[in-house]
Amino acid sequence: MDRDAILLTPGPLTTTLRTKLAMLRDWGSWDADFNALTAELRRQLLAIVHGEGTHVVVPLQGSGTFSVEAAVATVVPRDGHVLVLDNGAYCKRFGKLATLMGRRTTIHARAEDEPVSAEELDAMLRADPSITHVGFIHCETGTGVLNPLKAIADVCARHGKGLIVDAMSSFGALPIDAREVRFDALVAASGKCLEGVPGMGFVILRKEVLARCEGHSHSLAMDLYDQHAYMEKTGQWRFTPPTHVVAALAEAVGQFVEEGGQPARLARYRDNCETLVSGLRELGLKPFLKPEIQAPIIVTFHAPNDPKYEFKTFYAAAKRRGFILYPGKLTQVETFRVGCIGAIGRNEMQQAVNAVGETMREMGLST
Amino acid sequence: MDRDAILLTPGPLTTTLRTKLAMLRDWGSWDADFNALTAELRRQLLAIVHGEGTHVVVPLQGSGTFSVEAAVATVVPRDGHVLVLDNGAYCKRFGKLATLMGRRTTIHARAEDEPVSAEELDAMLRADPSITHVGFIHCETGTGVLNPLKAIADVCARHGKGLIVDAMSSFGALPIDAREVRFDALVAASGKCLEGVPGMGFVILRKEVLARCEGHSHSLAMDLYDQHAYMEKTGQWRFTPPTHVVAALAEAVGQFVEEGGQPARLARYRDNCETLVSGLRELGLKPFLKPEIQAPIIVTFHAPNDPKYEFKTFYAAAKRRGFILYPGKLTQVETFRVGCIGAIGRNEMQQAVNAVGETMREMGLST
Repeated sequence: MDRDAILLTPGPLTTTLRTKLAMLRDWGSWDADFNALTAELRRQLLAIVHGEGTHVVVPLQGSGTFSVEAAVATVVPRDGHVLVLDNGAYCKRFGKLATLMGRRTTIHARAEDEPVSAEELDAMLRADPSITHVGFIHCETGTGVLNPLKAIADVCARHGKGLIVDAMSSFGALPIDAREVRFDALVAASGKCLEGVPGMGFVILRKEVLARCEGHSHSLAMDLYDQHAYMEKTGQWRFTPPTHVVAALAEAVGQFVEEGGQPARLARYRDNCETLVSGLRELGLKPFLKPEIQAPIIVTFHAPNDPKYEFKTFYAAAKRRGFILYPGKLTQVETFRVGCIGAIGRNEMQQAVNAVGETMREMGLST
Repeated sequence: MDRDAILLTPGPLTTTLRTKLAMLRDWGSWDADFNALTAELRRQLLAIVHGEGTHVVVPLQGSGTFSVEAAVATVVPRDGHVLVLDNGAYCKRFGKLATLMGRRTTIHARAEDEPVSAEELDAMLRADPSITHVGFIHCETGTGVLNPLKAIADVCARHGKGLIVDAMSSFGALPIDAREVRFDALVAASGKCLEGVPGMGFVILRKEVLARCEGHSHSLAMDLYDQHAYMEKTGQWRFTPPTHVVAALAEAVGQFVEEGGQPARLARYRDNCETLVSGLRELGLKPFLKPEIQAPIIVTFHAPNDPKYEFKTFYAAAKRRGFILYPGKLTQVETFRVGCIGAIGRNEMQQAVNAVGETMREMGLST
């Protein structure tokens, strides 16, 4: 039957019908009604991290990566030096975009099954005073590992270094309190744990940092200083906003608040994650990460150790049953990933577990 | 009553319900179904300019300006020299983004009420052989003036110079034939004359040009060479696509084809434009441009020459009647703009004319 599959992916993800219905309107991007929508959305996003008074939210068109690139381009001066703490694919992407735009970049690689280390960061900042900024991924979607935001932020603060946080996969689900965690910029996007549709990102910037960022960006479209200044002056986006995506995110954030905000969302995702992990364990599938460093966002599983296993077949069979899985992103180990996020709960996760079980039996894999 | 206003703006614009309904699905961005949607959309966009075999379509997340910036970053080598033919606000923006990204840029300014000149371009290319690329806006939305694409392209071809065309406001409505018009890159977006929703752009690139563009871009997100290479290899977008926006554009392009393609769309917009201009003329409002250089996309009108006129009041009164007008963008002359594009026809334009008449009488302006 023609029914949307459940997306067990790190985004785009399954959204509520209410969120999608918010896209059935056409908005004038210059009009006061749309400006009010943008202003209220920015206010609500800021409230999620308790940044009122100290921080601002600057939305940006494009995918989350556009916002990460914009954050680096805006915050890091052209003669800055970025140290990227790397334990996965998105860390590497962060390093690549910083390098490409011409910022001096040092990439400190670590094993993908371990969090990055505040102690190592401390030592590196001592050893190389030329480092001006640290690039950090909160939840590395490559494996799903949770990195220690507070500890890293504290080390940066102690050394007086800037911190740019990619909180793409964590924002809205994991607690982030701007009153306790000092960052220059924190980046997230519409189509992740806020459960909007993809098409825009946003960057939460510390006001006193942003005030010094004029002229840093090599890119007109990605200049968050300019985007912010124009928005403050006119209430409008500098360039055509993705109006329907903005409206969907505003609606999704409304539902986020109704549900009980970040604690409620985390509780639901944790429950999803536990249902998933315990269910797949019973089928003989083991998570790649140790439980204590596993964020309840996306889980990497070892592929069944059986010559009959092939991801493509596994994926197609699960899809026929109504569930979209996600490929692994590790080069050394054969894995697959399953997202716990989106407008889904225990029912959907249990159905997914059942579908994976049926798929394995169909493929003749031992469960 | 709660009814969407008609957007008489250069985009976002009024879309059909069918187009918006296409957003009521969640797509997995990695999934074969979505890859097929992207592939078919790219094929259809290419067919609009008859670029089969010679050109490729590379879609990009973000607003149209992101795609213009990406086209310049990708096509112009770092030691290139861009000449921008400037007769309006969007030309100036083109010049600004090229300058910011570090490309040597020369801006040749002309009056805003005249098209750019192929003869002048010819003279400039003779005078300065260091120029490698020409930046050109097909329909300058600042005033609505139509610039001579074929003549400019012929001069560039004769001199062996690259040409980057911003066809944001013209694509799909005005004829563009890649078999007859030689360009390196031609840029447009989802939320303009194709009548999709805003949130993505696309660049049509000549294959033999694109093949030489590796490593030009200073930006990871905006590297169209990389975006294209990845898409050819995997069928997927490099970074999260705005899935709902893509689905809406695919649906809108389907309706475009049903309507009769570019000739039918141009005929409808011409009719809209004539209904608008003749109707407002009867109310004593004069277009800013001479008819022969007016594209039937957006029309700039002189504001009523009356101290009782104020745009804000005028705008609000028209909005109360269900029509969203657009402010002028000229600094010397008091004007306002009215778009002729979107999923609207003669009825809506006549209703708009009537609403402007009522508005003027309400404001005590002579009609």
